[in-house]
Amino acid sequence: MILATPPASLVDRLAKPGGTVISVGGVDIGGFEVIVFAGPCAVESEEQIVATARAVKAGGARILRGGAFKPRTSPYSFQGLKDEGLGFLALARAETGLPVVTEVMDARHLEKVVACADILQIGSRNMQNFTLLEEVGKCRTPVLLKRGMSATLAEYLLAAEHVMRGGNERVILCERGIRTFEPSTRNTLDLNAVPMLKRLTHLPVIVDPSHGTGLAWMVPRLACAAIAAGADGLLIEVHGDPTSALSDGEQALTFAEFAQMMPEAAAVAAAVGRRIGAAIGIDLNVTECAS
Amino acid sequence: MILATPPASLVDRLAKPGGTVISVGGVDIGGFEVIVFAGPCAVESEEQIVATARAVKAGGARILRGGAFKPRTSPYSFQGLKDEGLGFLALARAETGLPVVTEVMDARHLEKVVACADILQIGSRNMQNFTLLEEVGKCRTPVLLKRGMSATLAEYLLAAEHVMRGGNERVILCERGIRTFEPSTRNTLDLNAVPMLKRLTHLPVIVDPSHGTGLAWMVPRLACAAIAAGADGLLIEVHGDPTSALSDGEQALTFAEFAQMMPEAAAVAAAVGRRIGAAIGIDLNVTECAS
Amino acid sequence: MILATPPASLVDRLAKPGGTVISVGGVDIGGFEVIVFAGPCAVESEEQIVATARAVKAGGARILRGGAFKPRTSPYSFQGLKDEGLGFLALARAETGLPVVTEVMDARHLEKVVACADILQIGSRNMQNFTLLEEVGKCRTPVLLKRGMSATLAEYLLAAEHVMRGGNERVILCERGIRTFEPSTRNTLDLNAVPMLKRLTHLPVIVDPSHGTGLAWMVPRLACAAIAAGADGLLIEVHGDPTSALSDGEQALTFAEFAQMMPEAAAVAAAVGRRIGAAIGIDLNVTECAS
Amino acid sequence: MILATPPASLVDRLAKPGGTVISVGGVDIGGFEVIVFAGPCAVESEEQIVATARAVKAGGARILRGGAFKPRTSPYSFQGLKDEGLGFLALARAETGLPVVTEVMDARHLEKVVACADILQIGSRNMQNFTLLEEVGKCRTPVLLKRGMSATLAEYLLAAEHVMRGGNERVILCERGIRTFEPSTRNTLDLNAVPMLKRLTHLPVIVDPSHGTGLAWMVPRLACAAIAAGADGLLIEVHGDPTSALSDGEQALTFAEFAQMMPEAAAVAAAVGRRIGAAIGIDLNVTECAS
Repeated sequence: MILATPPASLVDRLAKPGGTVISVGGVDIGGFEVIVFAGPCAVESEEQIVATARAVKAGGARILRGGAFKPRTSPYSFQGLKDEGLGFLALARAETGLPVVTEVMDARHLEKVVACADILQIGSRNMQNFTLLEEVGKCRTPVLLKRGMSATLAEYLLAAEHVMRGGNERVILCERGIRTFEPSTRNTLDLNAVPMLKRLTHLPVIVDPSHGTGLAWMVPRLACAAIAAGADGLLIEVHGDPTSALSDGEQALTFAEFAQMMPEAAAVAAAVGRRIGAAIGIDLNVTECAS
Repeated sequence: MILATPPASLVDRLAKPGGTVISVGGVDIGGFEVIVFAGPCAVESEEQIVATARAVKAGGARILRGGAFKPRTSPYSFQGLKDEGLGFLALARAETGLPVVTEVMDARHLEKVVACADILQIGSRNMQNFTLLEEVGKCRTPVLLKRGMSATLAEYLLAAEHVMRGGNERVILCERGIRTFEPSTRNTLDLNAVPMLKRLTHLPVIVDPSHGTGLAWMVPRLACAAIAAGADGLLIEVHGDPTSALSDGEQALTFAEFAQMMPEAAAVAAAVGRRIGAAIGIDLNVTECAS
Repeated sequence: MILATPPASLVDRLAKPGGTVISVGGVDIGGFEVIVFAGPCAVESEEQIVATARAVKAGGARILRGGAFKPRTSPYSFQGLKDEGLGFLALARAETGLPVVTEVMDARHLEKVVACADILQIGSRNMQNFTLLEEVGKCRTPVLLKRGMSATLAEYLLAAEHVMRGGNERVILCERGIRTFEPSTRNTLDLNAVPMLKRLTHLPVIVDPSHGTGLAWMVPRLACAAIAAGADGLLIEVHGDPTSALSDGEQALTFAEFAQMMPEAAAVAAAVGRRIGAAIGIDLNVTECAS
Repeated sequence: MILATPPASLVDRLAKPGGTVISVGGVDIGGFEVIVFAGPCAVESEEQIVATARAVKAGGARILRGGAFKPRTSPYSFQGLKDEGLGFLALARAETGLPVVTEVMDARHLEKVVACADILQIGSRNMQNFTLLEEVGKCRTPVLLKRGMSATLAEYLLAAEHVMRGGNERVILCERGIRTFEPSTRNTLDLNAVPMLKRLTHLPVIVDPSHGTGLAWMVPRLACAAIAAGADGLLIEVHGDPTSALSDGEQALTFAEFAQMMPEAAAVAAAVGRRIGAAIGIDLNVTECAS
């Protein structure tokens, strides 16, 4: 039996010292601009996703997020609108022009998710679902691979290697909080991971402070911190009415909170020599954060 | 939208106060006897799996374990013999009469794995692969659901609920070590989980000290501890030549070590009012452990 | 500046391959017999500690535990009876002949604690209180050094080295649960630590399932597991009326529960080739555990 | 027996909604300015501490840190210059005018440490050394209380309550990384803790990215992130020649690296509406960070 050996690690920074920029619908992820992905945890209706898409676009988001297939800890929780949700996401994209990221939970759904999504999300719970990684590795659609909730960075990079080895080199990494002993927040956002990943790999690294804290009021502060730590983007949950959200309402920003956070985030981006929102003509950098 | 609500939790001890006994090929899991599942991490050849099956049967094991589809952290590690491995497992069962447990990693493999396996294993990394849980929930083959490496017991029980809700009520739980800060062992075996799970649910609970420690020399002591804690069974990795194993060799017992461990385990089982090996006419309980 | 370098590690198994046996008032810790230390979390009154001492002695305990100086997370919790508590411990020892272990929290209390205690306890929160370790290292009284709640075994052994380097070689180690993400138990009892410590060091290793679980009903099962894992002793909280205990009542056994647990523990001890209670003429090993 | 009950929690935000500002030698901690505490892990010589004090002052630091009494995991590591080190710190203060923070490990050293220190540091390993907390609670010197490496925020606040209850209300909190499963960094810096603590308590909250990462190259990025998260200050290890440092050299910035980091930190401070260095006439905010 002959086993494959790695000629060189595909994720390794040395393989691409200048870093990888992933272009999706005119948005460059991993470049000068800090890219904000925003939207609801779950697509709940056409009205909801279209209204949210408009709100986050107005606020400066460049990518729309929204789950149609939802992995849920309890089988009795809302599992997502599935195919119908994918359709609503396509409508929201048509309305706003925002590229769409949505989760794929199962290789058997891949064809239909690929037909709708501009970026395929692999959720934390599937970070080591190796047959799924292999399948998205065969796609040409970029992949947003979230860190498993107790994955070391070494394991995380090997999960990305699983995808890249299939031929799909457009992988975006996302720190989303790890599981620790601290109970006051949903997870512990590990911002050490941002500079460490940027050093170890050439792939873009974004941060999800919504899952990383689980508390909407805390999201803007950790979003700013993530940018200061060197993140290439943010993944932010936004909902028109968080108290009625079908999942994760406690961590969703309202439209107004999102609109308020973005100039703060932009000020920090400017302070570290980057920009938010520039390419779409929104100047978020004029005001100083007053938080 | 109307969401399902749980009329009563299917896993709850209250649903079946007497406990669930799962019969597989004449072996009762969850009853008086402590059941030992043993075999290699991965099926490597016909000779290897047949020889191992004979050795572990002789030692008192009642179920043969062996992986054909192997989830591996690195894409460059041995991924298992796949279909060929399933065939070898079937041969080993035919040779020894031992029922077989083997992992299913992907719903698309389910049909062929079900054709070979007496028990379907869901690995730790897939404990929250909800579409896979749903699919095995539709099978009539019992499921060995391993605890995720950072899953709380509440999450673990909800994962079992995902399976049971599909109609498959024959779920075996397995504590296999959790991820902590301690680096001297591969995982931290959480034996608190055994009495806690036995109190919360009616499902059988077994323990995997091989993954729980990662160190072969430590396995017998933690196997005995697991029985003393109230485990209904053990999952033990055994290999004819651990130093040449294609995966996880450091944690595999040799045939001789397994043969030596079993009377020690049987003595502890007797001390807590249970038996190992009785039903197959092997009297493991005569000698006192001299470890 | 010339720094001390270790000629050889004092804790290392190689320094004393046969293991260390520590004799305290006729009780050998680290030998053939599994030694049970039992008593209340805190000394609350003369009546309480004397009655408890009698009850645990009758049950087979060989050492009386009880806190006079209590480290408490909140400054508003009961802090112990301090000097008065030490006096009550001395009375209980006089009544029963049981040697006493009690905690010393501060080097300034050392003289008076040494005057009363047969074994000095260093609590988990003080495992790296290095000046305190140095001071008890100058005493001739044996030291029960509890593992810090997030200490690695390497750090734990270095803490013991701090004590031994001062000249006090009679150190007893105690695994008492580590801090993890699992919320259903107070701590996660790490029984992997038992064989690992026994391999790395010659010092006796005992286990505290009371703190390791935080739940009285679970203590007997983990006590048995600890013995099966190879522990040289147990540290068990016992209280005449746990519901009215001034600290940690949820994890204390009643006198009856302690009396019931001991034959179960003795049966497991016998199964692994050891004894509980033999030296004091109590034959705990006749009945098989029926739990 | 009558136990004290809390009339109201002293640390609670509600007790002082406007927040606490602690003035030390003309430096206001917890106010508009982000205060940088910098200096070596350990005082090694007069020359070293004086040169470092000058360098960090020139860079914009407002408080000098340096350990004279060093808690060390191994008894064979450098334990600090002790009394001699305190003398050198006093010299460095006289030279530069910078107030000094240094650790007190033992109540018996308190008198001499108080005679030298402007702020008393309680290290992570002593966060629950309650008799020491009580003693510093009787002092009038402000206390820098570091978070224990596995302390929950609730436990941390209760440790501060121990100090305040003694009458010393001038407590500064410091997040310095927690212990997790991730091995690539020394600790996991928990920046969620910053907004959470600011919400729960009125006390100032600073961040130590040196211990929080353990890696000098990563410190500037996490220092910026801490400020963006809302920290009131930074604790930064600086050494003239980190490769020859007697402790923790891997995480110390050189003088040049510190000088380079400060304008980056100041730019982020400005972006979140605060200042670094303003009060001492150093305008660190003119240049945009180019990292």
